[in-house]
Amino acid sequence: MQYNVENICGETSARAGVITTDHGKIETPVFMPVGTVGTVKGIHVNDLKEETGAQIILGNTYHLYLRPGLEVLKQAGGLHRFNAWDLPILTDSGGYQVFSLSDRRKLTREGAEFRSHLDGSSHLFSPERVVDIQRIIGADITMAFDECPPGDADYKYALTSLELTHQWLKRGVEHFDRTGPLYSHSQAFFPIVQGAGFRDLRQRSAEYIASLGREGNAIGGLAVGEPEEVMYEMIEVVNAILPANRPRYLMGVGTPVNILESIARGVDMFDCVMPTRNGRNGMIFTQQGIINLRNEKWKHDFSPLDDDGHCSFDTLYSKAYMRHLFIAREMLGPQIASIHNLAFYRWLVTEARRQIKNNTFLQWKNQMVTQLARRL
Amino acid sequence: MQYNVENICGETSARAGVITTDHGKIETPVFMPVGTVGTVKGIHVNDLKEETGAQIILGNTYHLYLRPGLEVLKQAGGLHRFNAWDLPILTDSGGYQVFSLSDRRKLTREGAEFRSHLDGSSHLFSPERVVDIQRIIGADITMAFDECPPGDADYKYALTSLELTHQWLKRGVEHFDRTGPLYSHSQAFFPIVQGAGFRDLRQRSAEYIASLGREGNAIGGLAVGEPEEVMYEMIEVVNAILPANRPRYLMGVGTPVNILESIARGVDMFDCVMPTRNGRNGMIFTQQGIINLRNEKWKHDFSPLDDDGHCSFDTLYSKAYMRHLFIAREMLGPQIASIHNLAFYRWLVTEARRQIKNNTFLQWKNQMVTQLARRL
Repeated sequence: MQYNVENICGETSARAGVITTDHGKIETPVFMPVGTVGTVKGIHVNDLKEETGAQIILGNTYHLYLRPGLEVLKQAGGLHRFNAWDLPILTDSGGYQVFSLSDRRKLTREGAEFRSHLDGSSHLFSPERVVDIQRIIGADITMAFDECPPGDADYKYALTSLELTHQWLKRGVEHFDRTGPLYSHSQAFFPIVQGAGFRDLRQRSAEYIASLGREGNAIGGLAVGEPEEVMYEMIEVVNAILPANRPRYLMGVGTPVNILESIARGVDMFDCVMPTRNGRNGMIFTQQGIINLRNEKWKHDFSPLDDDGHCSFDTLYSKAYMRHLFIAREMLGPQIASIHNLAFYRWLVTEARRQIKNNTFLQWKNQMVTQLARRL
Repeated sequence: MQYNVENICGETSARAGVITTDHGKIETPVFMPVGTVGTVKGIHVNDLKEETGAQIILGNTYHLYLRPGLEVLKQAGGLHRFNAWDLPILTDSGGYQVFSLSDRRKLTREGAEFRSHLDGSSHLFSPERVVDIQRIIGADITMAFDECPPGDADYKYALTSLELTHQWLKRGVEHFDRTGPLYSHSQAFFPIVQGAGFRDLRQRSAEYIASLGREGNAIGGLAVGEPEEVMYEMIEVVNAILPANRPRYLMGVGTPVNILESIARGVDMFDCVMPTRNGRNGMIFTQQGIINLRNEKWKHDFSPLDDDGHCSFDTLYSKAYMRHLFIAREMLGPQIASIHNLAFYRWLVTEARRQIKNNTFLQWKNQMVTQLARRL
């Protein structure tokens, strides 16, 4: 994996770049649609490419490990072959999912023991095991196994957790570098900065991670309940330390405004379930603000779903038709809203990239953040 | 609406033809995907055109009347504008749905009073009202309001029902001819032959309907529980009487084998929820037989969903991947299986048409019916 910075904003820390993988190039800033169990929910790969313009998608190690399972994924020749997505894939480490299981998991030095949310069966994820699993899945970019403390973690918890995460990271890196890819493409390994909402822990984590010199670096444990100002502050602290010649990935974030503010602070890569999950619930994002499609006010509004037309359905279908689909519980509603939102997120980061190259990013960003959060 | 016969099979009653509407031509035999509440479930119009090759879709008068309702449909400028489908649309009369409500409806000479399955509100469908509703929906082909007796109806019930259906038909025809289309395209009106499983009633009904000289004619009340041989016998009885220079539409039928056997008996138009409903449940139709995608046997079968490749997903996705989607309850499974089945039905009638033109239909049909019903 390679990363090249193309432009740096003169007024913010935003940058435009290109990541090169064996499955193709990724223009940054980039938003990565989440394909939890081997598919971006409700969107086939043709629409994912042609309508949403996705350059890379995410797979969830925890979910893929349980279903379809490693045996099937290995026989298929990896996730790319299994789900017919021939562009880059990133897999998370499963850490976030395992720690979300709360009463179903037990933490040890070795790793995390957990019981499946599907059938209660017992499993162990360790830093080494999670590397092996991601070798079998075959993602272009793999992630270290970390503990993700809650947003309100106190200092002592956060410190203990961070030390464990760093120990696990060391083991993960060593195991990754001892092993090789199973298929005909190379894989990268991204460590994850933790440290909750504490500046000194975030600094310490970023320094350790910078010292490893990996192909890219991630920031985890944000947007987990802490105030947004804390999140932005932590991003600034961390990005001042993480190497500028490597891509920076902010995990699980966020709203369109979060994304623009984080780009301004030097983040290059994003993922979030928000565009697809909120889309399935009838919420769509537009340049002018947020639309709840179930609202009565759209009942007789035959104007295009989104005049800006980020995908072909934005001008093909009306707000009134989309409202009807949600009220009648037709699955096409969630499908189209998901496609629209991903196409909108794609537009958002592509336009940010264009504004960065044009040296107009800051002004554009400041205007957009006042529009994007409005409720229409 | 116009209909031209292009070829007649030398060995069966099958024929190839073309129906011309203001929204375009329809090559027959044709299968019409069912778009109950204004959308073919789970398929957007781009895929409906490009992947399934649909030439015409159905709307259900009962469902559209309740949701989105006539006010919205009228303001939208009809269903074509509302759901962005610019090819032909046929609407049923709502009779079948209303009579399926059993304890929620009351039959009178005037029409059928019923309570909505959604909110219990009371409504009256009469032959005239159903014409008015279909004028508002704006389908290219509209249907008469009929009573559909159950498959096991006795002679007395079937006779009384038929007489009512014919009285309603007379009123419906008169009302249709007194009124005009609301939008810029013309509409046709098809009467429906009833008579349950009784030859003399079917003959009597077909004779009355033939005498009306409408643009096309339909056969209703079949595939409602009677043996298949009875269905085929009734089709033969009716089609010997219905005019050969008008299209014949067999309502709500059926399996791929039913369709080929009915084409052989002179039917030109079909609709059925089977390809989409069964698709949503993981059953797909292929030339080699029927596949239940949930079956364990596909877990490690990485061969294409269907080697014959009727849509682009047939060769893009494997059986193992499709099984995974159904087991993991991912909505993409129902979506792709629905598209596949509609593309398969499209292939089936298109190939039937080709074989008719080639004078090889009977031999091909006999070979296909042995294959199509197999369980793989």
